[in-house]
Amino acid sequence: MALTPRFPAFLHGGDYNPDQWLKYPEVLEEDIRLMQAAKVNCVSVGIFAWAALEPVEGEYDFAWLDRVIDRLWAAGIRVDLATPSGARPAWIAQKYPEVLRVDEYFRRHHFGGRHNHCLTSPVYREKVRAIDTALAERYASHPAVILWHLSNEYSGDCRCPLCQEKFREYLRRRYGSLEALNEHWWTGFWSMKYTDWSQVESPSPIGQDANPAMWVDWRRFSTQQCKDFILMEKAAVHSVNPELPVTANLMQRFWDYDYFDLAEAIDVVSWDSYPLWGSGNDLVQASEHAMTHDLMRSLKGQNFLLMESTPSQVNWHAVNRMKKPGMHLLSSMLPLAHGADSVMYFQWRKGRGGSEMFHGAVVGHDGTADTRTFREVRSVGEALEKLAPLYATEKKQARVCILYDWQNLWALDYAQFARKGDMRYTETVNAHYRAFWQAGVSVDFRDCRACTDLSPYSLVIAPMLFMTHGGIEEKLNSFVRGGGTLVMTYCAGMIGEDGLAWQGRTPHGLTETLGIHALELDALFDGDANTLIRERDQWRLTRLCEVIEADTAQVLGRYGSDYYAGQPCLTVNACGAGKAYYLAAEPEEAFLHRFYGELIREMGIPKAIGSQLPDGVVAQERGGAVFLMNFAPSSGDVLLDHPCRDLLTDRTLSGKITMNPLEVLVLEKV
Amino acid sequence: MALTPRFPAFLHGGDYNPDQWLKYPEVLEEDIRLMQAAKVNCVSVGIFAWAALEPVEGEYDFAWLDRVIDRLWAAGIRVDLATPSGARPAWIAQKYPEVLRVDEYFRRHHFGGRHNHCLTSPVYREKVRAIDTALAERYASHPAVILWHLSNEYSGDCRCPLCQEKFREYLRRRYGSLEALNEHWWTGFWSMKYTDWSQVESPSPIGQDANPAMWVDWRRFSTQQCKDFILMEKAAVHSVNPELPVTANLMQRFWDYDYFDLAEAIDVVSWDSYPLWGSGNDLVQASEHAMTHDLMRSLKGQNFLLMESTPSQVNWHAVNRMKKPGMHLLSSMLPLAHGADSVMYFQWRKGRGGSEMFHGAVVGHDGTADTRTFREVRSVGEALEKLAPLYATEKKQARVCILYDWQNLWALDYAQFARKGDMRYTETVNAHYRAFWQAGVSVDFRDCRACTDLSPYSLVIAPMLFMTHGGIEEKLNSFVRGGGTLVMTYCAGMIGEDGLAWQGRTPHGLTETLGIHALELDALFDGDANTLIRERDQWRLTRLCEVIEADTAQVLGRYGSDYYAGQPCLTVNACGAGKAYYLAAEPEEAFLHRFYGELIREMGIPKAIGSQLPDGVVAQERGGAVFLMNFAPSSGDVLLDHPCRDLLTDRTLSGKITMNPLEVLVLEKV
Amino acid sequence: MALTPRFPAFLHGGDYNPDQWLKYPEVLEEDIRLMQAAKVNCVSVGIFAWAALEPVEGEYDFAWLDRVIDRLWAAGIRVDLATPSGARPAWIAQKYPEVLRVDEYFRRHHFGGRHNHCLTSPVYREKVRAIDTALAERYASHPAVILWHLSNEYSGDCRCPLCQEKFREYLRRRYGSLEALNEHWWTGFWSMKYTDWSQVESPSPIGQDANPAMWVDWRRFSTQQCKDFILMEKAAVHSVNPELPVTANLMQRFWDYDYFDLAEAIDVVSWDSYPLWGSGNDLVQASEHAMTHDLMRSLKGQNFLLMESTPSQVNWHAVNRMKKPGMHLLSSMLPLAHGADSVMYFQWRKGRGGSEMFHGAVVGHDGTADTRTFREVRSVGEALEKLAPLYATEKKQARVCILYDWQNLWALDYAQFARKGDMRYTETVNAHYRAFWQAGVSVDFRDCRACTDLSPYSLVIAPMLFMTHGGIEEKLNSFVRGGGTLVMTYCAGMIGEDGLAWQGRTPHGLTETLGIHALELDALFDGDANTLIRERDQWRLTRLCEVIEADTAQVLGRYGSDYYAGQPCLTVNACGAGKAYYLAAEPEEAFLHRFYGELIREMGIPKAIGSQLPDGVVAQERGGAVFLMNFAPSSGDVLLDHPCRDLLTDRTLSGKITMNPLEVLVLEKV
Repeated sequence: MALTPRFPAFLHGGDYNPDQWLKYPEVLEEDIRLMQAAKVNCVSVGIFAWAALEPVEGEYDFAWLDRVIDRLWAAGIRVDLATPSGARPAWIAQKYPEVLRVDEYFRRHHFGGRHNHCLTSPVYREKVRAIDTALAERYASHPAVILWHLSNEYSGDCRCPLCQEKFREYLRRRYGSLEALNEHWWTGFWSMKYTDWSQVESPSPIGQDANPAMWVDWRRFSTQQCKDFILMEKAAVHSVNPELPVTANLMQRFWDYDYFDLAEAIDVVSWDSYPLWGSGNDLVQASEHAMTHDLMRSLKGQNFLLMESTPSQVNWHAVNRMKKPGMHLLSSMLPLAHGADSVMYFQWRKGRGGSEMFHGAVVGHDGTADTRTFREVRSVGEALEKLAPLYATEKKQARVCILYDWQNLWALDYAQFARKGDMRYTETVNAHYRAFWQAGVSVDFRDCRACTDLSPYSLVIAPMLFMTHGGIEEKLNSFVRGGGTLVMTYCAGMIGEDGLAWQGRTPHGLTETLGIHALELDALFDGDANTLIRERDQWRLTRLCEVIEADTAQVLGRYGSDYYAGQPCLTVNACGAGKAYYLAAEPEEAFLHRFYGELIREMGIPKAIGSQLPDGVVAQERGGAVFLMNFAPSSGDVLLDHPCRDLLTDRTLSGKITMNPLEVLVLEKV
Repeated sequence: MALTPRFPAFLHGGDYNPDQWLKYPEVLEEDIRLMQAAKVNCVSVGIFAWAALEPVEGEYDFAWLDRVIDRLWAAGIRVDLATPSGARPAWIAQKYPEVLRVDEYFRRHHFGGRHNHCLTSPVYREKVRAIDTALAERYASHPAVILWHLSNEYSGDCRCPLCQEKFREYLRRRYGSLEALNEHWWTGFWSMKYTDWSQVESPSPIGQDANPAMWVDWRRFSTQQCKDFILMEKAAVHSVNPELPVTANLMQRFWDYDYFDLAEAIDVVSWDSYPLWGSGNDLVQASEHAMTHDLMRSLKGQNFLLMESTPSQVNWHAVNRMKKPGMHLLSSMLPLAHGADSVMYFQWRKGRGGSEMFHGAVVGHDGTADTRTFREVRSVGEALEKLAPLYATEKKQARVCILYDWQNLWALDYAQFARKGDMRYTETVNAHYRAFWQAGVSVDFRDCRACTDLSPYSLVIAPMLFMTHGGIEEKLNSFVRGGGTLVMTYCAGMIGEDGLAWQGRTPHGLTETLGIHALELDALFDGDANTLIRERDQWRLTRLCEVIEADTAQVLGRYGSDYYAGQPCLTVNACGAGKAYYLAAEPEEAFLHRFYGELIREMGIPKAIGSQLPDGVVAQERGGAVFLMNFAPSSGDVLLDHPCRDLLTDRTLSGKITMNPLEVLVLEKV
Repeated sequence: MALTPRFPAFLHGGDYNPDQWLKYPEVLEEDIRLMQAAKVNCVSVGIFAWAALEPVEGEYDFAWLDRVIDRLWAAGIRVDLATPSGARPAWIAQKYPEVLRVDEYFRRHHFGGRHNHCLTSPVYREKVRAIDTALAERYASHPAVILWHLSNEYSGDCRCPLCQEKFREYLRRRYGSLEALNEHWWTGFWSMKYTDWSQVESPSPIGQDANPAMWVDWRRFSTQQCKDFILMEKAAVHSVNPELPVTANLMQRFWDYDYFDLAEAIDVVSWDSYPLWGSGNDLVQASEHAMTHDLMRSLKGQNFLLMESTPSQVNWHAVNRMKKPGMHLLSSMLPLAHGADSVMYFQWRKGRGGSEMFHGAVVGHDGTADTRTFREVRSVGEALEKLAPLYATEKKQARVCILYDWQNLWALDYAQFARKGDMRYTETVNAHYRAFWQAGVSVDFRDCRACTDLSPYSLVIAPMLFMTHGGIEEKLNSFVRGGGTLVMTYCAGMIGEDGLAWQGRTPHGLTETLGIHALELDALFDGDANTLIRERDQWRLTRLCEVIEADTAQVLGRYGSDYYAGQPCLTVNACGAGKAYYLAAEPEEAFLHRFYGELIREMGIPKAIGSQLPDGVVAQERGGAVFLMNFAPSSGDVLLDHPCRDLLTDRTLSGKITMNPLEVLVLEKV
């Protein structure tokens, strides 16, 4: 279920909280006027509005919301309508303290904050279902409402007795018997064997803290518990109009839940993107968010929404810089280039109080349109109108797929070995991703479960595939035998889905395809380094160096020093119709650019721009148009293969063009 | 009520704890002898003596204290008599656990430590009142006793149910209705609206943590609760002899309570000053303590007491250096120069155990007078005798007033924006202060409420006046219109007393006077910088840069780089008979010295020494004498306008004199 | 009671956990085969096996252990049999929650982890006694079993009500009366006087936190409580066969208990040594572990066992490097050189799960003997066979004794003064130790209580002897008067056993012998320094500089700067037939090497190798053989006085030989 039929244009708007301003009716009227001036066509309403919607238990007050939605509709502005479950009213916490979360120290929290309720609590679920249903009954068929915004930034977990019982139920389903649980959690270690289900409890710093398998299962359970909650909310709002799609706004570098799994519960993926512009290297910031855009697009294999971004600055970093002039347009085009169908902000108007009163907003405390921020927001609105033909178009089909797997992320974070707690899985995936992104190559992401069909891809990269599960070994083997090119790295295939170490040679199930097996995993202290020597090149290696033995693989590069000097560090193995590379150590990024640059060239993987891009300028193709973006602090020249029209300015360009800092072009061939 | 009538000389002495030595009668006798040898004329007795005074509930033992006070009196030594409420005996904690504090995690603490009782607890108050009254009945008319020392270093807060109820009562009084509370705390944000008073609770990391307005109100409430406790103690000791003044020893960089408010409850301000001499830059240390001296003097607009200082070293820093020879005299003269009427120490004699057994003392574990510390203490005693004519004289009336406002301090610390949690309000005020202090100019401090009369001042400086309250806008406007010169900086007038952001242009209520309004507040990362360009000068800017628009103001300086290069950074506006400067960014300190140096010259603000002082040498005038102090590690020359007599050495000096490192002179014109 | 009669060869083996593999009978069989291949002759069995041994309360299952021990015995492998009290089964925690520890915040912990049970709990003691007795009844006379391994790495403490009561009992025994307790804890300070025993509670961050004497007593109590628990376990296993010796594996840099005291409860000392090889300076790592080897040997004045070490890498450091080739042999010879009679590993085989699944092991997850680690382990097995004549021989009698005193360690850590919490007692002792170790000189350790007989020594060193107790003053005075040479340093003799500061001149009781007394203790900030000037040498001083006065002592060196420039920093005093040095400040290490080098030469203290050793090469003599070890990353030449045979390679060497990096020789005169 996608958004397209409901609204045929890029969404432009943001979080709108009229419930904070009910006593200021003049502000509400002014908002409509300013939204039109800013070319806003959609706002997210009702996030955190529970106390306004149900001021007394069971007594709903929809009058203000009726008025707001009707006024918006009259002004041509659509509504992304939220369920209010992201924060609960004081009365529910007071009457039913069990809705409050219990933390890892088994402390029941007090009323306050948000995203901190127990997702298991029957009373909480019942209260949420009731108000969700009431909202649906009233608004699910309102023409202004085009999307359900379930709750807000689902996150965290609870350790209350009810959650403990659900955890045990989850484990019972997963493992079948206590004996199997004991085996998979390897409870023979430290005499941890359970003899009764009631002994099993969530991990805790003041209880069972050191079993990585248990921790990973706790994360899986937390994912399921949240997914189940989402499905409950979805069922409530769909009980009236099952055609109205639901989204939930996800987050960057999110760790608590497996998003590939969670995304199954929603119709449309949306997320909140807050790069730290100006913090040192905007290109690195952009690459991390570009990767997340591609990841979010990959979750369901369809376009996504940018649900939140700041029009100016945030308020929750240690240092909150303003976006420089031009950055707002550039940073709003980046998600579009990767498949977003919206540019939405947190927040429309700065509140007068609360923790986010100074978070950037389209309308500030001055209340006027006469600000740089407002003007830049309107410019983005104008740009979105110019790019209308690109709405709902797809990103160019990728031939490259990178594995990013939440269960592997958790497993690496919880495992105690090598560089303990500092394995940097996401950073490593980003380093591999960046080599393609900076070359203008499209990339998809898959996790171990979801990569059922690798046939669209020529090249699959699996960095640090520590935990192999979901039959990923055979999927990769088949892919290579069928002609694909695979790249894997150190720490591969060491444990299985249950967290138990694979016995025998590793990478488990992949040694034949790779033609190598691992011997030792050396971890380097900060400041220590080794070298990858490949023909006449030398590349710096740090942090993690695996000692491997080449069985059938050809050695492409060797270690330059330490006791494994001369031993293989980079190999390739022919296998069936394909080939498989293995990179045994963590290289400097320049190596990845070189290495993947060669693969791109050899394999003829298409790039958005054929010529070499200057450092900092990136290109992505979507809907036949090429987004050309300069994240460098300096200008750079790009050689166009053929004359193009820039959709944003309607200029025609050809030959060598100069990209100014923060400049963005959206080019179509003419 | 001041001290003067009771004791006509500078107090010299310190905390004296004979209750620790009751089993060592020979030590008590020796103490008297040593006090006389050290020229000690006053000691603080009974701080933390509750267990000795009331060993069993309701049974007082005053015999030892009778003996101590009589012996002191016989030896000519006065007594600053403490109420013992700074720490409670074990029996009270055991029998009435509600006297123990509940922390921000809602944990009731166990017996131990000090300054950690519930100030609300009726039983605690009753026990304190009873012993205070008993002490007053016995000693309030003793000729030796010249001052009440209420408790010790009041601080902190409690979150027990009784305090929660008091907090709600406070809020009810403050806001009148729950609806008003909801409005002022902006509880529409995150659905935090209260529907019953019983839902309101103190802020907590495991409860309501993110509402800045609530936090500031919690601090205000804590101030009131402590003030109320002080008034209770004061009433108890005044029930017998209302003529005996009371003090409470305050602290440096104290954050928990609003000292301007608290000081209303006491007769005489005293405080505990512990510069970190030798930690790098003694001049900076001295400037921070000089500022606090002036702040303490300003609290009640009268002389204050230095209640604690160390004669040698402290024991609670990470690194506890000894004072170098000469530093003890110099550091004892600094408070005098700023209006202190005493030099008192913590502590007279090192205890044999306890956490402060190694804290510096006049008498060490060796028990003799034959130590450098003892000799330097005696020298200070001699110096105080020589300076007797200056006792109770006033510091030269200041023409410069700086605003330092506790509520603003809290508001900036709790606000989430810009450089979050790192706004450095006190440091910034100190940077402005230092420019005057190093120039030898007298400075007073006021807060927003207390600056009712600005007429004595020619120049008022309000650094980072984020929260405007108490009608400060109109006070400043009037001041300028009436001919005063005002200097304000970035972050001004953004929120009101209730914590709500001002709507419309900022600095709220001051844009006409200043002739500017603020547009954007940019926060710079560490390492980033901008430049203030003023005529041919360039000054480095860091951390916070506000983008402003000059309306009627004249632009004196502009930004040198970034997207706001060329925009105004320093302005001045003529308004009525006065003028108002606005500094939009945080400059290097050298700029403040230059800028204020020019203002001092232009405005003819008097300096203690007319000629230029070498770096590290400072001068302050009090009672007609000029204290000239060298905090630099090197010598420096000072040119005297006229011949002077040094009261400390009785030498006559004139022309160019050389100040050695750590040298201090107290000069009177001859 | 020593091991020798039971097994006449160096033990080689490690922790073996067949209880984790009961479902994999093929693994158990393979283990025996691999142990023989690795020349393993002893394994530690049953550590953490409680859940396997007593799966249901009161129902023991010894069948699997019977089989394991019989199979091992049949294969010629001895057993170090563990009591399982290091971790408890889930059922005991569930049924008797009082076995779980209560932490310093008075939180009862939940089930999980290890070493975290209440050592006071009667039910825990009863359950441990029962299973220990049952184990003893079954195995104490089994020919394979040569040693009892009591529990595992005893550590920590509990604050439950039962422990509180035991703490009060301990204090009652120690002090006799509450009045005496009040006096020794100096509770006159801060009104902390106890009027009833029931008011006394363990120190806590949320209770009584700041009394150093109380903290030290808590550590003493914890030591006693653990010792009592050990004696209980020992009695249980000795109830059947009192001839079987018991050990407990101790740890490096252990702080919780006084090991000199604890060691009285066991027959044989063993410990777990995990140097951080490759982290920067292997020589420093080696020196710290060499010191601990000597300390462990000194605990009972007899040879010890290396109970745990890693054959490859650990998994619990932040960075876990592999041992380089050769390091395993070298690092296994180091303990032997210092008196170890074993080389044992944690662990024999990597588990498939649990927190230590990636900790280094003889057998990895590949399950084969075909790894570098396995081959190096076998090499160590071969080396141990070659060194058989050295088994149970003693280290050469030391003429140097260094005081290392746990109570002093605690006192310095808890005291609040100088460089608070950063006094670095152990590091300082190690710096003094290293000067001898690198010179090839044997060193013994004693604590204040245990140094009853100093007559074997010519030179006694007492670094930072802050707390003097056990009559140490008179022991040292007698030692010097009798002709010994004593070296003491700053911070000496400041407090007594009860934590009370000594009154009068310090170092308490030693001023006559030393001929000096202390005046002031200055603490330097990081980056600050002073200089020790001795004749023409200058040495850098940092951190701690004591100002002293020489009474009868001769001044050998003086301070170079600051206000104590020219005052004595290094002195020597003739006293009776001996002399006593005093070093008043913390010098750079090179000074200690020079200073002690001179003393060694003057006093004719024997060295393992007469000639100068190159940097990084160390030599220790044991059983007539000299272990020559190179911990430097480069080669170094050693001049042999006479021809020698290397026991490891059977080569004969003479004259100048070159030691390669990581090379080790075990030389006997030929």
